[in-house]
Amino acid sequence: MSKSRKDRHSIPQVAGNGLLDRRALLGGGVALAGAMGTAGALTGAAAEPLVEAPWSLEPGPVIKAYGTPSEYESKVVRTLTNPKGEPRSEVARTPHHLLKGIITPNGLHFTINHAGVPNIDPAQHKLVIHGLVKRPLVFTLDALERYPMVSRIGFTECGGNSAPLFSNEPIQANVQALHGLASCAEWTGVLLSTLLDEAGVDPKAKWIVAEGADAPHLSRSTPLAKVMDDAMVAMYQNGERIQPGQGYPMRLWLPGYEGNMCVKYLRRVQVTDQPALTFYEVRTYSDVLPDGKATRFYFVQEVKSFISSPSPGLILKEPGIYEITGVAYAGTGRIAKVLVSADGGKSWAEAALEEPRLPKAFTRFRMPWRWDGGPAILQSRAWDEAGNMQPTREQFVALRGQTSKPPSVLGFPSHHFNAIASWAVDAKGEVKNVYA
Amino acid sequence: MSKSRKDRHSIPQVAGNGLLDRRALLGGGVALAGAMGTAGALTGAAAEPLVEAPWSLEPGPVIKAYGTPSEYESKVVRTLTNPKGEPRSEVARTPHHLLKGIITPNGLHFTINHAGVPNIDPAQHKLVIHGLVKRPLVFTLDALERYPMVSRIGFTECGGNSAPLFSNEPIQANVQALHGLASCAEWTGVLLSTLLDEAGVDPKAKWIVAEGADAPHLSRSTPLAKVMDDAMVAMYQNGERIQPGQGYPMRLWLPGYEGNMCVKYLRRVQVTDQPALTFYEVRTYSDVLPDGKATRFYFVQEVKSFISSPSPGLILKEPGIYEITGVAYAGTGRIAKVLVSADGGKSWAEAALEEPRLPKAFTRFRMPWRWDGGPAILQSRAWDEAGNMQPTREQFVALRGQTSKPPSVLGFPSHHFNAIASWAVDAKGEVKNVYA
Repeated sequence: MSKSRKDRHSIPQVAGNGLLDRRALLGGGVALAGAMGTAGALTGAAAEPLVEAPWSLEPGPVIKAYGTPSEYESKVVRTLTNPKGEPRSEVARTPHHLLKGIITPNGLHFTINHAGVPNIDPAQHKLVIHGLVKRPLVFTLDALERYPMVSRIGFTECGGNSAPLFSNEPIQANVQALHGLASCAEWTGVLLSTLLDEAGVDPKAKWIVAEGADAPHLSRSTPLAKVMDDAMVAMYQNGERIQPGQGYPMRLWLPGYEGNMCVKYLRRVQVTDQPALTFYEVRTYSDVLPDGKATRFYFVQEVKSFISSPSPGLILKEPGIYEITGVAYAGTGRIAKVLVSADGGKSWAEAALEEPRLPKAFTRFRMPWRWDGGPAILQSRAWDEAGNMQPTREQFVALRGQTSKPPSVLGFPSHHFNAIASWAVDAKGEVKNVYA
Repeated sequence: MSKSRKDRHSIPQVAGNGLLDRRALLGGGVALAGAMGTAGALTGAAAEPLVEAPWSLEPGPVIKAYGTPSEYESKVVRTLTNPKGEPRSEVARTPHHLLKGIITPNGLHFTINHAGVPNIDPAQHKLVIHGLVKRPLVFTLDALERYPMVSRIGFTECGGNSAPLFSNEPIQANVQALHGLASCAEWTGVLLSTLLDEAGVDPKAKWIVAEGADAPHLSRSTPLAKVMDDAMVAMYQNGERIQPGQGYPMRLWLPGYEGNMCVKYLRRVQVTDQPALTFYEVRTYSDVLPDGKATRFYFVQEVKSFISSPSPGLILKEPGIYEITGVAYAGTGRIAKVLVSADGGKSWAEAALEEPRLPKAFTRFRMPWRWDGGPAILQSRAWDEAGNMQPTREQFVALRGQTSKPPSVLGFPSHHFNAIASWAVDAKGEVKNVYA
């Protein structure tokens, strides 16, 4: 490594503890030229004659009909909480620290199933629409394939994502464990409004109740206004049919709404004049608040962001320039702005936002940072286009509570955590979850 | 099926042979309500008590750490031309007739390899930048991970995609066989300009020569102006590390340029004052034209579109309303407009374009169509924002030639086919490749 090219200090610092002007990322990286110091100069040992690796000398294995990641990426997987399929819920989390961009590949999209993953024969699956409609209808997958389809890139997030941050002491875990119940994909399917228009919705209707074909028959209520706005009967995810863990052959997808409401294995939509008060809506996804009241019908995943790199497990090996990056998203619409701090919120600077910035979708943010080798606390704070911003954790827990119990213990808050999250970097370059 | 709700003829026809106003797709599909007639009424047999399927009665299998498609989707795979890995090129084509949206999942992205897929240990892989630079540099994957990264959704297309349409007689094959060498993904990596700025490009430099670490050491020349504009050293595809077939651990990605130039397994970038005239650029990817001259340095994949559904193998089972859909893309920029014809080009109507319409990326187009059960010839024609349009096949072959030889026979034209393609629908609802 050439020390002479390292860290020229040519890029303006825009906030405390080494945050650099995001414009250094533009213009082909001109301002960063020579500042990184991570490349090796092609001199001395590095300039010795190239020794051909084995894969450069002979033909490699054949192409597979359905490609898979390299065997060297075998650690890039979802973490499973119930790998033996015991009679309880299974949770699979997205490894955000190992991913880039805004699209989550289908194999790594988070999923939660409450009685395993049903292996549904699509030829036998039907979707029934009934209740307060003029004409109850039944749709096969083949019939739905005839309908006009829309595609939309958007995030899905479990209402319980980031629940460990309700703990009154910071739990030591990585970004996958803490924030891995949110993912983003291109969903394609038929707007539910198209099907409801064909069925003819009764003027008295105000809600729908969606039910899955899995063994728990998971069901949730959704206001009709949301349904007619942008609800989709999704059949494709990132181009291909949705995977079994995502609701094959079809799921309800409600852009920006709590993941549990996006009923997988969708087999029934009942149009009603009131919510059904199902198990998951009144029990699991209703939190008790500090004033003793409970949240009910808390549907929207509010504006949020987290830093995916640096993050716990990704050690900074030496001082120098790094990119702070992560994702921001809001169930309310488009991300307008993300600020980043390297000094625990004392000072902030605006991050670069990658295009396309789509409503109710991940937006990737990036911020150049010169780590001087000392302690730092990294934070991100997102704003949506309506001006809503992430609260501080202090503000958030004052309203929503915190707990000494493990996440998801009934009666304690564990849902819709969207406050600012903080990573502390120590002098060894190790990253920890902290409250700051 | 309820015949009474079928085909109400309430949607305005906007062009010959049943093309309907694309605005019927808007507004929650209101105008289509009742016109589809593919849903079953929930009366009689369909209203009988629900018989629970086995997957609705007991827990399903466990979630996998890395998810895969349903076993019922086992036919949604790439076709392979050399599944036994004989000593020749291998080509794997994307099954467009079975996909929707604009993102191609990584396992189904097209790929061509000339000596199998090298199984590269990323810890041993290095990228060297040398030639007309002030400071030759060598980058490990770890070093590149430190650099600012950009993400971009874009298509990659083999210069030889659609080559069968150079045949002077229409070859009977499906959309996967004819147009399956184009795919679209979100690529993330470091701009090559960032690395070249660090190396310091000599003012005399005009080209780069990129070389892969695969056994053929595939190499191609690219003008420096393109490289400094938007060339990327891509390491991630749709969020995860790029797959071995796509160039793991890193590839050159040149938005909108011929796929073969996007050198996989990138190990060397030599900055030069002239092109290297490598094997693939002067031999394979240079076509002989009717006037005896040859194309050389024909890099841009020009404006193009094809209909993915209906298409050969997807039979129309009965008259009624269908959605005509496909993808349009241009190496020159954004798609501005797609027209669709159902009468072989006698009349045209404008298709709906799905958002986001990104430059040098797939744009999904959609068009409602009432098939009356008679013969039809379906075509699509795309325009880019600069006003370039797809030529007719007649115009195209006048300039570029056609052949009675199989595609890719040297000395005959087989590259950069971007003319209008045509599907004929017969009275049985079968779809064939035709010239019209």
